[in-house]
Amino acid sequence: MSADESLAGLVRRVQRLEDELAVIRKLTAYGPLVDAGAADAVAELWTEDGEYDVEGWRMVGRAEVRSMVLSDAHQNIIGGGSAHFFGPPHIERIEGDEAEAICESILVRHEDGRFYIWRAGVHRIELRRTADGWSVTRRITRPLNGSAEARDLVAGRK
Amino acid sequence: MSADESLAGLVRRVQRLEDELAVIRKLTAYGPLVDAGAADAVAELWTEDGEYDVEGWRMVGRAEVRSMVLSDAHQNIIGGGSAHFFGPPHIERIEGDEAEAICESILVRHEDGRFYIWRAGVHRIELRRTADGWSVTRRITRPLNGSAEARDLVAGRK
Amino acid sequence: MSADESLAGLVRRVQRLEDELAVIRKLTAYGPLVDAGAADAVAELWTEDGEYDVEGWRMVGRAEVRSMVLSDAHQNIIGGGSAHFFGPPHIERIEGDEAEAICESILVRHEDGRFYIWRAGVHRIELRRTADGWSVTRRITRPLNGSAEARDLVAGRK
Repeated sequence: MSADESLAGLVRRVQRLEDELAVIRKLTAYGPLVDAGAADAVAELWTEDGEYDVEGWRMVGRAEVRSMVLSDAHQNIIGGGSAHFFGPPHIERIEGDEAEAICESILVRHEDGRFYIWRAGVHRIELRRTADGWSVTRRITRPLNGSAEARDLVAGRK
Repeated sequence: MSADESLAGLVRRVQRLEDELAVIRKLTAYGPLVDAGAADAVAELWTEDGEYDVEGWRMVGRAEVRSMVLSDAHQNIIGGGSAHFFGPPHIERIEGDEAEAICESILVRHEDGRFYIWRAGVHRIELRRTADGWSVTRRITRPLNGSAEARDLVAGRK
Repeated sequence: MSADESLAGLVRRVQRLEDELAVIRKLTAYGPLVDAGAADAVAELWTEDGEYDVEGWRMVGRAEVRSMVLSDAHQNIIGGGSAHFFGPPHIERIEGDEAEAICESILVRHEDGRFYIWRAGVHRIELRRTADGWSVTRRITRPLNGSAEARDLVAGRK
């Protein structure tokens, strides 16, 4: 192999590493932003037409994600105090301009001076490389309450 | 240094980065899989003769790890709903074909419509590079209940 | 572009990846160490003159961080059992010799045979590259109890 060919191969490997860390940065941004009520910044984690499907509620597009953050329901949660506390994303695949990750989270709420776990869920998150970097095209969330849906989601049956 | 020598050094650095992300992917896979009851996939995180030593229970080999996932005890936990919720692994060392990481976790259970923390623990996890990629050769788990064992484990006294 | 120029560019990209993983390793080290009461190792995560500003308590320098770990208050927490359970750090920026990250955490305590969440917080952590690698120059922690301070911290208003 020539030095040029070797270098080209290495560039692809470095790009793959950069992609994985960029995807991880995108996914670790969500929790602190949504707890801070940063509606625009949360919405911009998704692509323009990205989906967020959470326990019977399906949002499509940034405006709907933004509205969720600004909703009375969400404002009430973060007003009292909350941690949308996410575990480290498991990067399942990165292929060209697409990526897919799994992670779990708990939603910790603060009420009457004490903290407690209100929800626990698992997420399958699909991302696409865009002109502005990696963005979420679809996030599906299912409750970890013994539901078959959560098991299916981990197994890739969406 | 010649361009060839520089390139060879860079290849080693890229390999080291790939190893670290591969180890992280292996470790972040466990929680969602074990909550989904994916017994085979969980067992395959370990090497053929890998060990899992958890609070007085020592499993050796994939068949025993698989049996743990299929046990009544585990099925009862995940049937009601659970999050084996792991924090981000701290990669302590990667040397050649061996790696070692530390992380903490909580085990969140769902019962009677509410979520609560049933256990908290710390894990020391040893991995080896195999023909199928990085796999766990030993995982030791100790409870974070004030035990000296947990402190010893973090300090590397196994 | 010549092969030498290409190689130099690639070296910078690899260095950037190494920096990001080194920062992540530094940040993921804290929880297990502080739960194990490893006062010296915790203190050494900070620079000599590093700051730790947590809910009305401002420590400056390694000696003060070390004293916090050895304090009766902290020893009481870890003696009963605790998980200073951190989520994955979100690396907000790495520029030259400086880095900045955000993450959330919960503090799980064990008392009377049960585990519960005592605190939840968000952290902004600044790091600097030193002769001994990346070290924390400032960590600011604010409670996720609905406080405006926590929202401000996420938004970068310190």
